[in-house]
Amino acid sequence: MTTSDDDVLHVHPDRLLPSEPGLRTIARELYDSVKDLPIISPHGHVPPQWLADDVPFEDPTSLLITPDHYVNRLLHANGVSLADLGVNQETFTDEQKRNAFRLLCANWKAYRGTPVKFWFESELADIFGITLAPSEANADAIYDQIAEAIATPEFRPRALYKKFDIEFIATTDDPVDDLRFHEKLAGDPTWEGKVAPTFRPDKYLEPATEAWNGLVDRLGEVAGVDTGTYAGWVAAMENRRAFFKDRGAVSSDHSHRDPGAVKLDDAEAERLYAKARAGEITPEEGDALRRDFVFQQARMASEDGLVMTMHPAVYRNHHAESFERYGADVGGDIPMGVEFTNNLRPLLSAFGTNPNFQLVLFTIDETVYSRELAPLAGFYPSVYVGVPWWFIDEPDAIRRFRRAVTGSGAGFGRTSGFIDDTRAFLSIPARHDMSRRLDAGYLAELVGEHRLTMDEALDTAYDLVVTQPRKAFKL
Amino acid sequence: MTTSDDDVLHVHPDRLLPSEPGLRTIARELYDSVKDLPIISPHGHVPPQWLADDVPFEDPTSLLITPDHYVNRLLHANGVSLADLGVNQETFTDEQKRNAFRLLCANWKAYRGTPVKFWFESELADIFGITLAPSEANADAIYDQIAEAIATPEFRPRALYKKFDIEFIATTDDPVDDLRFHEKLAGDPTWEGKVAPTFRPDKYLEPATEAWNGLVDRLGEVAGVDTGTYAGWVAAMENRRAFFKDRGAVSSDHSHRDPGAVKLDDAEAERLYAKARAGEITPEEGDALRRDFVFQQARMASEDGLVMTMHPAVYRNHHAESFERYGADVGGDIPMGVEFTNNLRPLLSAFGTNPNFQLVLFTIDETVYSRELAPLAGFYPSVYVGVPWWFIDEPDAIRRFRRAVTGSGAGFGRTSGFIDDTRAFLSIPARHDMSRRLDAGYLAELVGEHRLTMDEALDTAYDLVVTQPRKAFKL
Amino acid sequence: MTTSDDDVLHVHPDRLLPSEPGLRTIARELYDSVKDLPIISPHGHVPPQWLADDVPFEDPTSLLITPDHYVNRLLHANGVSLADLGVNQETFTDEQKRNAFRLLCANWKAYRGTPVKFWFESELADIFGITLAPSEANADAIYDQIAEAIATPEFRPRALYKKFDIEFIATTDDPVDDLRFHEKLAGDPTWEGKVAPTFRPDKYLEPATEAWNGLVDRLGEVAGVDTGTYAGWVAAMENRRAFFKDRGAVSSDHSHRDPGAVKLDDAEAERLYAKARAGEITPEEGDALRRDFVFQQARMASEDGLVMTMHPAVYRNHHAESFERYGADVGGDIPMGVEFTNNLRPLLSAFGTNPNFQLVLFTIDETVYSRELAPLAGFYPSVYVGVPWWFIDEPDAIRRFRRAVTGSGAGFGRTSGFIDDTRAFLSIPARHDMSRRLDAGYLAELVGEHRLTMDEALDTAYDLVVTQPRKAFKL
Repeated sequence: MTTSDDDVLHVHPDRLLPSEPGLRTIARELYDSVKDLPIISPHGHVPPQWLADDVPFEDPTSLLITPDHYVNRLLHANGVSLADLGVNQETFTDEQKRNAFRLLCANWKAYRGTPVKFWFESELADIFGITLAPSEANADAIYDQIAEAIATPEFRPRALYKKFDIEFIATTDDPVDDLRFHEKLAGDPTWEGKVAPTFRPDKYLEPATEAWNGLVDRLGEVAGVDTGTYAGWVAAMENRRAFFKDRGAVSSDHSHRDPGAVKLDDAEAERLYAKARAGEITPEEGDALRRDFVFQQARMASEDGLVMTMHPAVYRNHHAESFERYGADVGGDIPMGVEFTNNLRPLLSAFGTNPNFQLVLFTIDETVYSRELAPLAGFYPSVYVGVPWWFIDEPDAIRRFRRAVTGSGAGFGRTSGFIDDTRAFLSIPARHDMSRRLDAGYLAELVGEHRLTMDEALDTAYDLVVTQPRKAFKL
Repeated sequence: MTTSDDDVLHVHPDRLLPSEPGLRTIARELYDSVKDLPIISPHGHVPPQWLADDVPFEDPTSLLITPDHYVNRLLHANGVSLADLGVNQETFTDEQKRNAFRLLCANWKAYRGTPVKFWFESELADIFGITLAPSEANADAIYDQIAEAIATPEFRPRALYKKFDIEFIATTDDPVDDLRFHEKLAGDPTWEGKVAPTFRPDKYLEPATEAWNGLVDRLGEVAGVDTGTYAGWVAAMENRRAFFKDRGAVSSDHSHRDPGAVKLDDAEAERLYAKARAGEITPEEGDALRRDFVFQQARMASEDGLVMTMHPAVYRNHHAESFERYGADVGGDIPMGVEFTNNLRPLLSAFGTNPNFQLVLFTIDETVYSRELAPLAGFYPSVYVGVPWWFIDEPDAIRRFRRAVTGSGAGFGRTSGFIDDTRAFLSIPARHDMSRRLDAGYLAELVGEHRLTMDEALDTAYDLVVTQPRKAFKL
Repeated sequence: MTTSDDDVLHVHPDRLLPSEPGLRTIARELYDSVKDLPIISPHGHVPPQWLADDVPFEDPTSLLITPDHYVNRLLHANGVSLADLGVNQETFTDEQKRNAFRLLCANWKAYRGTPVKFWFESELADIFGITLAPSEANADAIYDQIAEAIATPEFRPRALYKKFDIEFIATTDDPVDDLRFHEKLAGDPTWEGKVAPTFRPDKYLEPATEAWNGLVDRLGEVAGVDTGTYAGWVAAMENRRAFFKDRGAVSSDHSHRDPGAVKLDDAEAERLYAKARAGEITPEEGDALRRDFVFQQARMASEDGLVMTMHPAVYRNHHAESFERYGADVGGDIPMGVEFTNNLRPLLSAFGTNPNFQLVLFTIDETVYSRELAPLAGFYPSVYVGVPWWFIDEPDAIRRFRRAVTGSGAGFGRTSGFIDDTRAFLSIPARHDMSRRLDAGYLAELVGEHRLTMDEALDTAYDLVVTQPRKAFKL
């Protein structure tokens, strides 16, 4: 194979920095000052077993394609079946895996302008040392080079954790999880990293769903509490939160269709709980009880000190047939509009100035940045504005985020620091790198317009990588 | 008259390209690569008779002012009566026409920063060779020069169609239209262009309006079907869609107050249809039946293959008195908020992965770009994000569009390509030119930040002008 | 104390102008052409007594911190108690004042990227000639320098009014206010300024609040009208509006949770009014009657010619406990989403083309700029789009404002001109200066992209500072 310029993978050292020469010079200095700082990752979805058991990665496709809904969904939109990418397949042969990788490379053009292109090309270049651009012609060569690499000890999860210079990483876990992998890591004298669980109780807070009663039974068993009553549910939750906190958890995470949190009076809560346990609660009552449950989580947070994070307003499994064939988390979740000012008022009136309470608010609905989130975080000492997440964790949206929240009330000190929110372990360095580049670019704009001095910008660049995540997540 | 600098029309060859010198160089190369490609116009409002009969344009005012609500509305906001611009006037004398043109020129300052200025000045310079800037002093001279030009054969619609290098243009037509002008063009051996009708059935889908029963009667007559029953309505629609498709239609267009599409069960649909035919349907029931009708259109589209386009959420004829005096489409339509994620779920669960179905979603509510439209188009193979339309078909909004939809999930390949959506035939080249300049500018940003190579950007610039409209509209 | 570079206050002459050298050159020329024009301030909250009695300022803290919720709220978010800033404190000692100033300086970093930093540093440098940057170490020195200055005659309100070159300023006043300070100024032959009252009747239009009946009693007393009936309420309002207009008022201001304005039929209005007077109105009925009251205000405006301004959709006193301890206007107000297209249709159908009626629409919900406000202002001759206000009166949001409203229909001529909306008298020059710099920057972009000629941009820069506020507020 001859190599034309089209075949070369272009990974420019200044990528994502402002193109205007004056700003680029400023941004490069800012970026250089933070690019090698350790990674703090307080919210994500990496399986703890990978690190506990140092599980070797099997093949390029099951590492980079099958489990990554960012990658899958755009191939699906371009007519590729999720089955052909290995999603939810009982058997998936070596040839099928190689073919999935070919499908990705053949459709590489579809990712132009998306962050997947940046992350993936960074991974290829920086982690695997690949110099070929993804294309139909290069697919096999790239596949082979990755396959060869991940067969070596240098590409085992623990080695990569060290190579990536991760200082702290949080996983996301079910309240009934025994956290055995976290315990194994904690008890392993050869392990020097820090992997914390995160308490994610969503499905136990949705009493109108079919699965709820079974889940709450199981919650009771694990907690050793009778969840037949509302008080039992509360006690079981408090028990499991304590269990998580003992094992290093710093936060609980909540993702419902709206961020509502409203305390019912006790009798009404008891009544609805009983109806739910009898399987007779209506959807509207289910919403009311769920909002009470969320309020209870906030109350617990104000006592046990776990940081509360919210990722609200996503329509899960939007395409019914895909959900049936492939299950959840396969790219079929679609955001919706969200409202915080009214929805959070009861919660914030109760706990908003409680010094033990912290609430990090994420959104995919950008309209709330200047209208609701920055004004809230600029008043309540408990509230932090979460950085862009999911569909808007991408360069243009990250710029909009800083330009919307900073001046309209939050400054930099009321924002969360970067979270990668990913199950794609190998993309973590690239995701944090993207954030650092873009924050450097925004700060360069402020310096270029004499809104900040260079000293202030350098200090702020450091804060965004180190101080803010530590403060927002109590690390 | 002496000519000062104020009198000179400034139409810079680099207008709308980025001002930063490095980006401008890149953008100019990208723009140069696409600026002379033929025009594909898959959605618009040019009267087909103009081309069928090659109707000569009468005078500058009835060509450029009276029918163009973009031009009229801002004059109206500045205190000019629509009557003085010839809107809905039975008689409008030559002197009144000349006076209307003077009013436009005297108020030219009002258009600063709006796309009308770009389009109109481009038309003056590029089509008419005018070198004077619009002003009270220049109004008559410009009027005379245009009047002189349009009296010549070179300014007849067919000659301009050829001069504009239009490859394909769609009109917008009533389902009961006999499409005689489309047939005349198709049967004319001297005509080499391509003019397709578009099926626009909105008013037949609004059963709570006063006009509906009469319209549906007429629909039945034209289709040769008894529309006394729901099944008859469906059959008549299928019949007319087939008629349109036979005559070259590639799409149907839908503009309701919300994009809801929900199938009723058959009995309920029958019941509401009967109530509507009896003139007894309530507004709420009318909405429910309309959403069922829209669902039916999607079902038909999945069978006959016509692309479905939606332009939802406009409050038509917002100012009652203006509507009474001047009729519809005179500038008094005002956009509203829109919601796609929930509204489209039933439709997309039914047809979203049907290979025969395509849905192009337009919006004037920019909040849905990153929140709903890009995520939808980045998953469903049927969904395309429509380019900015109407009030947001303007430079700053077009930039926001690309910056919002590209990275948040749609890339470039899930967008519609440019549509001009205009009845102002002479503005078509300027509108497509504006789009090409701005897309070149956005791509230049990506190249300048090393997010795309120049080769990738050149390929994408071509795709946006040629590949995407062909793909989205099945051309 | 030795002075390091960190100690120096950096106030660059080109701050907030575009950083790209070509655009900066253009922007500087535009800015220079308007920077010294007099200040027109048609909406704000400066106490008229300050100017009427030429009250000397007491101390730096009660001048710059205690009454300014922009400053307070971000300190509160950073853990500083409002009590420690002097908010609602019966006694507040000199040492406490000095300590409050130290708290501000020690937390100065929190304001990075916010407009407070720009305003405050401009005030320090331009008004007080301070060359030290705020910091814990510099706090006392800066405090002393300000304290010394405000003890001199040059820093009395009237002297500053003259120094600031204010041409017109409006205060905001209760309908029952006797406007004695405005009368004193009007009757003072030594006073050459222009201070107009603004009619702000919000609380008299909220019939479901506890305070309403007492307020309406008092309104009746002051107006000399029996407000026992709906007709009496209307007459009292007309009476007080006339009183205000006689004393120079040019506008009335309205801030409710939504901008709804719907005329009830007379019998229903009477019925709800009677219920409200009996203290028996429900919240829903209260909203309906309030919207009727707002409609009445518009009707009055179309007769007496006072410009109507709206600042809707703020959740007042969001944190109950802070409201109880510190009262209103202490930084705890949080914006909400807003809808204009439907809410204003009845009002605009009634008065939208009335030549005596003008309506200036402000928003903190940026989503309505291109979707609703620019389209409304680009059609209705009565409607002006208000400039960014409150949380979005900051550089990045001001840019978004111009980029969103100009091209989508309003141009420049349908916008309000700058309003400072502040009670912080000393920040007025800096606020107007910020606006002028940013408008110069936006116009420079248009010139740089050849969308405007330099002559057009210079003319527009002047219009935005002089012509537009005069037109929008009938000055």
